[in-house]
Amino acid sequence: MNEPSQPAPAHASRTVDLIRKKRDGQELSRAEIDDLVAGYTSGKIPDYQISAWLMAAVVRGLSKAETAALTDSMLHSGEVLDLSEFPAPKIDKHSTGGVGDKTSLVLAPLAAAGGLVVPMISGRGLGHTGGTLDKLESIPGFQVGLSIVRFREVLRDCGCAMIGQTAEIAPADRKFYSLRDVTGTVESPYLICASIMSKKLAEGVDGLVLDVKTGSGAFMKTEEDAAFLAKLMVETGQRMGKKMVALITDMDQPLGLRVGNALEVEECLDVLRGRGPEDLRQLCLELAGWMLHLGGRSSTIDQAKKLADQLLRSGQALEKFRRMVELQGGDPAFIDDPQRLPQAKHSVDVASPRNGFIGAIQCEMVGTACVVLGGGREKKEDSVDPAVGIILHKKVSDRVSAGESLCTIHYNSETRAAQAKKLLQQSYQIVESPPAPRRLVHRIISAADAS
Amino acid sequence: MNEPSQPAPAHASRTVDLIRKKRDGQELSRAEIDDLVAGYTSGKIPDYQISAWLMAAVVRGLSKAETAALTDSMLHSGEVLDLSEFPAPKIDKHSTGGVGDKTSLVLAPLAAAGGLVVPMISGRGLGHTGGTLDKLESIPGFQVGLSIVRFREVLRDCGCAMIGQTAEIAPADRKFYSLRDVTGTVESPYLICASIMSKKLAEGVDGLVLDVKTGSGAFMKTEEDAAFLAKLMVETGQRMGKKMVALITDMDQPLGLRVGNALEVEECLDVLRGRGPEDLRQLCLELAGWMLHLGGRSSTIDQAKKLADQLLRSGQALEKFRRMVELQGGDPAFIDDPQRLPQAKHSVDVASPRNGFIGAIQCEMVGTACVVLGGGREKKEDSVDPAVGIILHKKVSDRVSAGESLCTIHYNSETRAAQAKKLLQQSYQIVESPPAPRRLVHRIISAADAS
Repeated sequence: MNEPSQPAPAHASRTVDLIRKKRDGQELSRAEIDDLVAGYTSGKIPDYQISAWLMAAVVRGLSKAETAALTDSMLHSGEVLDLSEFPAPKIDKHSTGGVGDKTSLVLAPLAAAGGLVVPMISGRGLGHTGGTLDKLESIPGFQVGLSIVRFREVLRDCGCAMIGQTAEIAPADRKFYSLRDVTGTVESPYLICASIMSKKLAEGVDGLVLDVKTGSGAFMKTEEDAAFLAKLMVETGQRMGKKMVALITDMDQPLGLRVGNALEVEECLDVLRGRGPEDLRQLCLELAGWMLHLGGRSSTIDQAKKLADQLLRSGQALEKFRRMVELQGGDPAFIDDPQRLPQAKHSVDVASPRNGFIGAIQCEMVGTACVVLGGGREKKEDSVDPAVGIILHKKVSDRVSAGESLCTIHYNSETRAAQAKKLLQQSYQIVESPPAPRRLVHRIISAADAS
Repeated sequence: MNEPSQPAPAHASRTVDLIRKKRDGQELSRAEIDDLVAGYTSGKIPDYQISAWLMAAVVRGLSKAETAALTDSMLHSGEVLDLSEFPAPKIDKHSTGGVGDKTSLVLAPLAAAGGLVVPMISGRGLGHTGGTLDKLESIPGFQVGLSIVRFREVLRDCGCAMIGQTAEIAPADRKFYSLRDVTGTVESPYLICASIMSKKLAEGVDGLVLDVKTGSGAFMKTEEDAAFLAKLMVETGQRMGKKMVALITDMDQPLGLRVGNALEVEECLDVLRGRGPEDLRQLCLELAGWMLHLGGRSSTIDQAKKLADQLLRSGQALEKFRRMVELQGGDPAFIDDPQRLPQAKHSVDVASPRNGFIGAIQCEMVGTACVVLGGGREKKEDSVDPAVGIILHKKVSDRVSAGESLCTIHYNSETRAAQAKKLLQQSYQIVESPPAPRRLVHRIISAADAS
């Protein structure tokens, strides 16, 4: 009659002990974390034990040493690229994701034009945030599924390449992430850090610039949460000998003016020509500046940003982009003729209901409107319509008149357009006087701050 | 590039929402808990989601309402016996388990002799604590696997019956418990309460006396933890309209003088004859007193205990026991000739290394010594040797001389006896002066205290 008060059977006791240890708030050793990661990846430890451990880790948290151990263990569950054949500094950027967040398409060729090697491995969009791979795939012919051999060839030729995660990269993270997704264990800075860093460090980079988003369209809604995650990632990368910096940047409204895959590619072309919306252009210069600075291409960050600006204005970044598109199977004709990108059949304006100023844009709702149009995914299995999306005409603090267009919806389905319109109407808040402006870069977290 | 910050796929979102809710320390509704229990029992919700929820529940805790809802939901996952055909009060006892904890074998016939109906469904031993079913099965021919129909017949004939859990009783708890066992989610008073109470209330009882053990041989090592669990169970039972009382009783040394299945049955015969070790006899009178009192057989608890004492001394309890053994297929000849119980082939004494007093007996170690001899289980699959065990000659505060026997090991394997001897030598602490005595009943938690 004593069943509920008994110890676990001996055969499962080792894993159960590790679960209980974390449950009780104790710190696991490197060897213990390796056992969990290796056991799960090989299938020896079942899902239900790892999900219990993950929940204990979410609620109790992980120490810095545990976070680094988990990162390193997942990183070494697969292939870690050795790019030592390239003499130039290997520097990448990672963003935690947002709406209209398209900087990667500018940064990879821009940093390559500045003499860096950028081996960028990206993901797809899910939920309200877009994904780099989906944007790239709106380019006719562009291949994101290159082999590692071809990836190296592209890097050797033009200094940058952009592909999707391969089976060889951090297989443990793929398995852990799928489980976290269905067990309520996604929302943990420690686990997010290990997931991101294990994949990014598998690229064999020397340094990494992190763009940690905060605001209504970001995963981390508060600057405090964003800074916590940023510090954790910077610290973890530094422990592993990498040059690290994190920028906490604003995602309280969409970045730039375009949301939707082909629409965003077109906007990137503007930035690569030294034009484009000011917030997007400025953020690209900030991030590229830090990439160049980490790569030793300047003695100050201001010099690095000026160099980035010159590389855009001179057309060198655009030429790198053109070369990368060609090398990855794309037809570069769209660069001079953007009409060759997928175009939606219809468009409709969303009009302002009254005079005033834009007080706020519910950023996540704009991202959801794009998903509703078919431009994003609710589930991993969903396919994406590259042509649809939203072009914003008004952003926060802009003056607007009654009846004036707030944004234009580009769509292929009337039903979906009607749903998206409702969301966009709700997302715009019209007020009597303009709000205090938010800064684009809230905070910079570098080596010195993160310990 | 945004993978780690994404919501779960829509198809699993309902369960994920419930996991996240508990993870974040919020309270689930009755309907939400029903969904989890029903979904898991039917196989719609997978192990890995429930184990994550269980871990969140262990770390965050459950409210009283959630604990009651989980209990009720698991209770109604299977058959709830309707014993309304019996006019007498239906009262059972449950113990959280210990070493030498054999009171059930005395209490069921004793309370039945006092006019109650005792429909006792018990479990097997696991780890250092013994189980009622294993003790009963050391009686030649005794059947614990009765059908519910036969269970009713035995109850009708003699007022008590003792069986194992059937497939019909609380199937949800069986599934939850198996998962808890391998996911480090056993040690939670909320989950322990729901597990115990769902099974015990499925017996269709009007009232329940809880014997919550505390001390070195108990699951709850401190009186505080024991009282917390006791209050939770009393409150949960009361919410469901049951008469409840919990006794926090001592398990800092073995109960009685015998540990091991057949050895314990023999000791119970002594108690059923009004004799036996004083601690065991007193505890049986306390618990039986409360059973009779809850069943309305007395106006005061003291009267009830006197009644219990008379029922032992008069031999009425023993006659009930004899009848139950016959009805459940056992050969009652052992009652008058205990040599018919399984006997170990060999015995050896453990001698005191010096003069002094017994300062403490590491109770869990004595239980483990019995397991080592083959008298208990390390794993559920292990079989049990009914004959082996330990007879204690000295208990805490007893005076002992160098070379005098502390206890006798009854064994069938020399190797196992040697291992057990080491454990028993370690478990006895010999000191210069006797320690302050511990009370047998630490605290009584009844209706009034538990709110």
